[in-house]
Amino acid sequence: MKIVKPALLKGFDQEYLPQQQLQFNALLDVVRRNFELYGFLPIETPSAELKDVLTSKGGTEKEIYALARLAAGDDQDEAATRGALRFDLTVPLARYVAMRERELAFPFRRYQIQRVWRGESPQARKGRFREFYQCDIDIIGREKLSSLAEAEIPSVIYSVFREMDIGAFLIRINNRKVLKGLLQCHGVPDAGAGAVLRALDKVERESKAAILADVAREGVSAAAADELYGLLSTKRSTDQTLELLSTYAGRNAMLDQGLAEARAVVHAVRGFGVPDAAFALDLSVVRGLDYYTGTIYETTLVGHPELGSICSGGRYDDLASHFTNTRLPGVGISIGLTRLFSKLQEMDRKWVVPRTPAEVLVTTMDPARMDAYFAFARGLRAAGVNTEVYLEEAKLKKQLEYAERKGFRVALVAGETEFAGNHIQVKDLANRTQQDRPAGELVAAVRTILSRYTKAKAD
Amino acid sequence: MKIVKPALLKGFDQEYLPQQQLQFNALLDVVRRNFELYGFLPIETPSAELKDVLTSKGGTEKEIYALARLAAGDDQDEAATRGALRFDLTVPLARYVAMRERELAFPFRRYQIQRVWRGESPQARKGRFREFYQCDIDIIGREKLSSLAEAEIPSVIYSVFREMDIGAFLIRINNRKVLKGLLQCHGVPDAGAGAVLRALDKVERESKAAILADVAREGVSAAAADELYGLLSTKRSTDQTLELLSTYAGRNAMLDQGLAEARAVVHAVRGFGVPDAAFALDLSVVRGLDYYTGTIYETTLVGHPELGSICSGGRYDDLASHFTNTRLPGVGISIGLTRLFSKLQEMDRKWVVPRTPAEVLVTTMDPARMDAYFAFARGLRAAGVNTEVYLEEAKLKKQLEYAERKGFRVALVAGETEFAGNHIQVKDLANRTQQDRPAGELVAAVRTILSRYTKAKAD
Repeated sequence: MKIVKPALLKGFDQEYLPQQQLQFNALLDVVRRNFELYGFLPIETPSAELKDVLTSKGGTEKEIYALARLAAGDDQDEAATRGALRFDLTVPLARYVAMRERELAFPFRRYQIQRVWRGESPQARKGRFREFYQCDIDIIGREKLSSLAEAEIPSVIYSVFREMDIGAFLIRINNRKVLKGLLQCHGVPDAGAGAVLRALDKVERESKAAILADVAREGVSAAAADELYGLLSTKRSTDQTLELLSTYAGRNAMLDQGLAEARAVVHAVRGFGVPDAAFALDLSVVRGLDYYTGTIYETTLVGHPELGSICSGGRYDDLASHFTNTRLPGVGISIGLTRLFSKLQEMDRKWVVPRTPAEVLVTTMDPARMDAYFAFARGLRAAGVNTEVYLEEAKLKKQLEYAERKGFRVALVAGETEFAGNHIQVKDLANRTQQDRPAGELVAAVRTILSRYTKAKAD
Repeated sequence: MKIVKPALLKGFDQEYLPQQQLQFNALLDVVRRNFELYGFLPIETPSAELKDVLTSKGGTEKEIYALARLAAGDDQDEAATRGALRFDLTVPLARYVAMRERELAFPFRRYQIQRVWRGESPQARKGRFREFYQCDIDIIGREKLSSLAEAEIPSVIYSVFREMDIGAFLIRINNRKVLKGLLQCHGVPDAGAGAVLRALDKVERESKAAILADVAREGVSAAAADELYGLLSTKRSTDQTLELLSTYAGRNAMLDQGLAEARAVVHAVRGFGVPDAAFALDLSVVRGLDYYTGTIYETTLVGHPELGSICSGGRYDDLASHFTNTRLPGVGISIGLTRLFSKLQEMDRKWVVPRTPAEVLVTTMDPARMDAYFAFARGLRAAGVNTEVYLEEAKLKKQLEYAERKGFRVALVAGETEFAGNHIQVKDLANRTQQDRPAGELVAAVRTILSRYTKAKAD
């Protein structure tokens, strides 16, 4: 028989061993649980959408994978002629809300955790892949949306990453109106604002000279460019930044409005219980996209700035202007979990998550007593304990090696002696200790051992 | 601005409103929890694989979606030239195990819950879609696998559907060796066995005359065809079937082996705790695929035979012969959850799942007291209660309408009077009752109301 080499496509290669998958799933669960704690509702959208829908906003065609027929087949299949894979979860959300406007309750708070596909150059080193998970939340208003929604987002981010326990992190927020107002104050015309902001977005990655040159190219005076650079590159506390901005008060309507919003958001973020150590108003947060109109967010791991932002987003004026005339202002963020996970693995974090969902292995020394082994398993499963019965005929030593390799916590052993005394040997595999327990105390004995791991996790 | 009509691709249209998505997710959770209770480990594989990998077994090309570039882009992107979407979870599993043979512990017990894509004609009426979820488990041995693994599978199926609470179901099992042996006993040559079995597979859907004609076309005598038809179309209990088969004992080696396996499997299925009411040895279960070599499974809802099988699979001799020379015998099943869910919705089942993950809405009568409302929410979330704060300025009536519409269980109301007395109005939205409670008793009061739903679910 012809053997095909088993391999993966480049960029479609974030595939994990079961132990890694368990760790990844534990992170997904943290994200999901916290999104739900804040009252976000789940949706999922199809992987493929109409090309017209995906390209309605333009500018992303090069990254999109279209679907095609592999072999001559169903000519009626519009997916193969008009379909393409989504490249983010925002365009599908816009299409979803526009289609179901009458059936949804607004403000519509949705979360969505799915894979997206982008035909970019994959760079494993940078954690950039062609297929990856995004975890998004958005709050969508109809015609209006309170700026309190902008303040609530950081409290969700805080709640997620605190429980993820991945070290100190900082939620950096800024306001696009503040940025635009500052540019106007320094004589930058609105038409050039986008380009100037994109240049200034590189404050943390490029030299001052290079950035000033880029800004000057947009017709900004050297003095203004220098002052803008100083504003964005100097680190200040949240209150220092607010104080600095208040010196501009009354000079520019856009800036005044942005400052009022930023003040209200900072006040409410504190009200939502986010400690000052975990967030900062930071003028260097720019977000290149013109899409954003109010508060914008980036989140960085304090010990690992090289990771860049692990959670970003912002406020926008109209989600679905390409699909409906109803104005749908919103605010949202996205966590790129595949990338974050790939980086966390490199950092060799001590993961405090179960290595296996199979907590107990029932070994089977005596093939004639399988019914008794099955009964042990039934009792444990009824008590919610993940249990596997070793089904092959094998020496006990081999069965215990399997238990070790797969990461079980507990192995049960019962042979002639144990059955005669109605006892079971309960082996604690981590401690390499064992105890003989009456069959009736099996569940309690196992629970005592497993509770050690739950406690270790909670501490 | 040009408006694009928001719409979905045909067959890529199983997209749910949040309340439906919650119900679907509740089913997914049941499946996942039960797979884990039996010690299956999770894996996920990339959506797209190399075309060569997907087509290694042949016969499926017409259903496969290839990836292509939407616009001229990265010429180095092999995904757009050599990639295609998976059409099942078995081929990716085979590729996965072949690639990671040295890193996995055998028997390898994996579960996988992901979407697959097939370019078939979508038929919403039959619950057939082009994108749908499959929930698979497989137990893969290296070189050998005990037939006890075949007996364990029905206990997992039983555990899943019992908890899903979708009405009476029957796990119908058969054995391909028994079927092949019966054909040999009736003079059907091995070369024609596949075609005869495919004809007999239609016992429940087509007329006797049509099936007999199909069987005769394979060169089977009229008398033999009639007897085979009788064997497969008559309903018997498990023990009656075993008794009938024992009358063939000694006539055919294949049948003898199949009968011994079937006996052992039936004994062990009972040992695993599956009641006789939930499973049956049933000669009419055929599974068209030649792939299967031992026990085969189909599962039907007793009250809804028109749904066909909601969970099918079987034992196979070699999972990955196209990718490795190591022999990997295995057994597995697949639940087509998208199809099942679409049918359950038509049946208008009384779903006993939460309609919203947002259990409590904190209404906000006084915009000046937002910090107090946020504090209520913080306390509830810390206690694990899903809580949303109404962030827009709106009349209380409108806020309560929103609560109703989104399906909240509890609404909290606090205005001047309540703040003065350090009390909160706790509204039970289903009962339309309310009580004034001291702020310190908030969590307890909410929990009492919510516990009603948990109890209702457990009963």
